[in-house]
Amino acid sequence: MTRISGVLSPVVTPFNADFSIDADRFVRHCQWLLSNGVGLAVFGTNSEANSLAVGERLELLDRLVDGGTDPSRMMPGTGCCALDDTVRLTAHAVKRGCAGVLMLPPFYYKGVSDEGLFRSFAEVIERVGDERLRIYLYHIPPVSQVPISLALIERLLDRYPKNIAGVKDSSGDWNNTKAMLDRFAPRGFDVFAGSESFLLANMRNGGKGCISATANVNPAAIHNLFQQWKSDGADALQSQLDAIRATFQKFPMIPALKAAVARWGGDPGWARVRPPLVELDANQTATLIAELEKREFEMPGLAVAA
Amino acid sequence: MTRISGVLSPVVTPFNADFSIDADRFVRHCQWLLSNGVGLAVFGTNSEANSLAVGERLELLDRLVDGGTDPSRMMPGTGCCALDDTVRLTAHAVKRGCAGVLMLPPFYYKGVSDEGLFRSFAEVIERVGDERLRIYLYHIPPVSQVPISLALIERLLDRYPKNIAGVKDSSGDWNNTKAMLDRFAPRGFDVFAGSESFLLANMRNGGKGCISATANVNPAAIHNLFQQWKSDGADALQSQLDAIRATFQKFPMIPALKAAVARWGGDPGWARVRPPLVELDANQTATLIAELEKREFEMPGLAVAA
Repeated sequence: MTRISGVLSPVVTPFNADFSIDADRFVRHCQWLLSNGVGLAVFGTNSEANSLAVGERLELLDRLVDGGTDPSRMMPGTGCCALDDTVRLTAHAVKRGCAGVLMLPPFYYKGVSDEGLFRSFAEVIERVGDERLRIYLYHIPPVSQVPISLALIERLLDRYPKNIAGVKDSSGDWNNTKAMLDRFAPRGFDVFAGSESFLLANMRNGGKGCISATANVNPAAIHNLFQQWKSDGADALQSQLDAIRATFQKFPMIPALKAAVARWGGDPGWARVRPPLVELDANQTATLIAELEKREFEMPGLAVAA
Repeated sequence: MTRISGVLSPVVTPFNADFSIDADRFVRHCQWLLSNGVGLAVFGTNSEANSLAVGERLELLDRLVDGGTDPSRMMPGTGCCALDDTVRLTAHAVKRGCAGVLMLPPFYYKGVSDEGLFRSFAEVIERVGDERLRIYLYHIPPVSQVPISLALIERLLDRYPKNIAGVKDSSGDWNNTKAMLDRFAPRGFDVFAGSESFLLANMRNGGKGCISATANVNPAAIHNLFQQWKSDGADALQSQLDAIRATFQKFPMIPALKAAVARWGGDPGWARVRPPLVELDANQTATLIAELEKREFEMPGLAVAA
């Protein structure tokens, strides 16, 4: 099977007024993303996945696949604090034919050793026991506070060269991404940048794409750079992406993404987030939208037909 | 009902060779702790609770209560990242008659606002919807990386004066514990120190006890200080506790506690921890035991009769 590559979106998860998941809205947003060339890293940080119970994630993945969405375009997040939860989510994703899984390390305990993290990933791989399993390690120290070191990647790759497929580097540190590319890309290890800010640099250095929050709202343009990265105009395209991202980054990211989907989808309920997150207030929403409109930002085809 | 007070142990959780929970060993350790005057803060940080799935915790609590262990001496940890999980564990603890619950804030997202945390705790209280619910807020910023501010406590107490019963302060910062005591103890808010290091200071300032890792291994002596805190010899008792704790603190705490239970219980399997934690190596174990033996450390009655 060909490995997944390109631009993926950690799909934002819509909630009803009682904070239950709105599966219909979710499936529609996934379809819109796919139609814009973007794959589905469902259950990522920007999906509020760790605010969802394991059962909710299993059910939502089934809903998506049963509804005909192509699992070969999916990389669900499956890393939990508890080993049994990670195994359950991962085994299910493999069984449903997902291209891979994006796996956080167990993130409650801090300062844990590489030995402990190695045992954790190894135990998941052994228990899932399926040669189709493709793990993308999720390095996001600003949130998880549990980094995945180069030494750990090396050890995992040595032991499980087939199952350890790559990484999403959300460190925000290009030097770290570059080190991963230099050391491991020649061994068939697929590096995804954690945002489109590093998409062009990542492609030029042997990376495979990016998994980015803002791919939820700006998918076509980000996918376009992925396709055009060898072209003369690539740097200009990167600059345009950076400007849109910078606008979102002035606000808490997840509520801002949802506010934009609510506005351009004509669907105010999309703005809801689960506690402990808080939606943008009216002022923030107005400022975000005004700034995006000034940039002639659009989300064509998102609005549900009246 | 009288509120729970005194010394509680975040009960260490024993595992079989395949990392499944050994419920029999667990129940025996709980009984030993109770027989030494110490209550049961099962499913705490030192219990590796966040390495247990929700279903595992529900089952283990049932096993304990069904076996006749007194739930009025229990304060299970119930705070998870996902709201539904926290509600499920909390409602179950209330239904089984537990004295209270020790509640972590949702701990995946960092830098969340007091507003978001307020909504999170409030939503749990509303959903559980039981006036018997007593929540002890769990402030452990070195691990959770999500602190519980004094302003948040005040807001929760104002809104839910019956349900918000107290706090475990594992900040390690006596000034913070003191501030909680000064501001909230007069309102019937019960402050537990996060370790016995602050037990005497906490009692002298209106606190209710402590919830401490080392209560797993040194329960009788810690309980003795709780009973004797007004006596002339209290400072000397505190110093003795500090010396034992200092010995354990030279090692990773959870593996060290389990190594001691394994040694003095005559039961090597107790040393196991779940990934991402790693048990002490042979050298560390020998050093720990030698230092404890030098201090004439004992755990009377722990060893299973031959």
